[in-house]
Amino acid sequence: MLTIEPVAIAHTPFKEKFGIPRQPALANEVIGEIRLLAPYNEPRALNGLEQISHVWLQFLFHKIRPEQCQQLTVRPPRLGGNKKLGVFATRSTHRPNRLGQSVVRIKSLEGSSIFVQGLDLLDQTPIIDIKPYLPYADCIQDATNGIAMAPPVTLAVQWIPRALEQLRQHYLPTGQHFDQLKMAIEQCLAQDPRPAYQAAEPERLYGMNFYHLNVRWRYPQTDSIEVVSVSEFSSSENE
Amino acid sequence: MLTIEPVAIAHTPFKEKFGIPRQPALANEVIGEIRLLAPYNEPRALNGLEQISHVWLQFLFHKIRPEQCQQLTVRPPRLGGNKKLGVFATRSTHRPNRLGQSVVRIKSLEGSSIFVQGLDLLDQTPIIDIKPYLPYADCIQDATNGIAMAPPVTLAVQWIPRALEQLRQHYLPTGQHFDQLKMAIEQCLAQDPRPAYQAAEPERLYGMNFYHLNVRWRYPQTDSIEVVSVSEFSSSENE
Repeated sequence: MLTIEPVAIAHTPFKEKFGIPRQPALANEVIGEIRLLAPYNEPRALNGLEQISHVWLQFLFHKIRPEQCQQLTVRPPRLGGNKKLGVFATRSTHRPNRLGQSVVRIKSLEGSSIFVQGLDLLDQTPIIDIKPYLPYADCIQDATNGIAMAPPVTLAVQWIPRALEQLRQHYLPTGQHFDQLKMAIEQCLAQDPRPAYQAAEPERLYGMNFYHLNVRWRYPQTDSIEVVSVSEFSSSENE
Repeated sequence: MLTIEPVAIAHTPFKEKFGIPRQPALANEVIGEIRLLAPYNEPRALNGLEQISHVWLQFLFHKIRPEQCQQLTVRPPRLGGNKKLGVFATRSTHRPNRLGQSVVRIKSLEGSSIFVQGLDLLDQTPIIDIKPYLPYADCIQDATNGIAMAPPVTLAVQWIPRALEQLRQHYLPTGQHFDQLKMAIEQCLAQDPRPAYQAAEPERLYGMNFYHLNVRWRYPQTDSIEVVSVSEFSSSENE
């Protein structure tokens, strides 16, 4: 038994698991803040990162219950949910020790915070280590993965005019420009948050929370998404 | 405070820290075994890895004392030991939570073990997670790292005839062929285990333990290594 302590907390737009991109690079307009915790919250702990483009975040899937993490096999949603794989052959969130690992682009360093782009972490995620990306060691040109060789296919995202108007209405500065916020939402939806085994029903509404906004959409065709409304998200916990 | 448990133990040729390659890909002839621990030690926990070329190992630098891991800055040996960097801008072993992360090539799967190539872990290292390498997410083509852009320069390695004879004499099958064992030793030495700030002294002898062997060498010139002897390593702990 080993004990570890968070070194930082992630502040991200994702208030719930549904809608989070499955890999970080797929939504590069999503901006988050990695804020160091005491005793590490001093700018000098980040000294040198200004010469580095990307960092690894090691983190805890803190909203997964430990008792859900004891199985040896999982059914990845990308494979339709009906194929069992060994947990160590997947990046499933339901895994021993609940450890996650994501590489993100550094946007800026401010005090003892790193602002990053292309984030796939739930808000308030405990970060247990931050490491510089080492291109010559980490980027393996001949690596192959027969289970997940290519990024997921993305869908076309449209807004009905009223939804776009609502987005503009509820838009509050969050360090992001309006266009960037819109694109971040589109990038998250384009990856199709639905589990792969869920059949398309054109009338069914889906929703996700992004910052203080609740975004709702439907699937007019199987390969496209239509955003139908944006409202303010009531802050009551809806786990 | 979070608690985690090892999921596997690494069995490697490295019995001490000195001589371990600084990054795993630099010594691809070094073979190691990642042996799953109960309750994960069943082949089905690895099901799917036969379609995958590389895995990430998340591990603990278990021989680093936690009280050495509280500083916010470190002096990386590659930079001559006189430049201070924030600990989160380096892959230093002296870091909060003592967490390490290495990508290795899968050589074979046998029962509930993964045999891997290009390992940079101390023998008996506790592994806390194993994740498949995802080329499209993990291999960032435009990543830059101004501190460590290229792999370290390697040195030429020669053996005096007597040392090579000794290696042959003490060679015991370890799952490796003789030529592979010789090359693994050469790859580790070629990276120059000396700290960068240590001046070359042609007569000074250096030694490292590799499996059951103690290998000794010197630097006839600053850019070359000569292996001068190979003997059996007494198993007394020499930390």
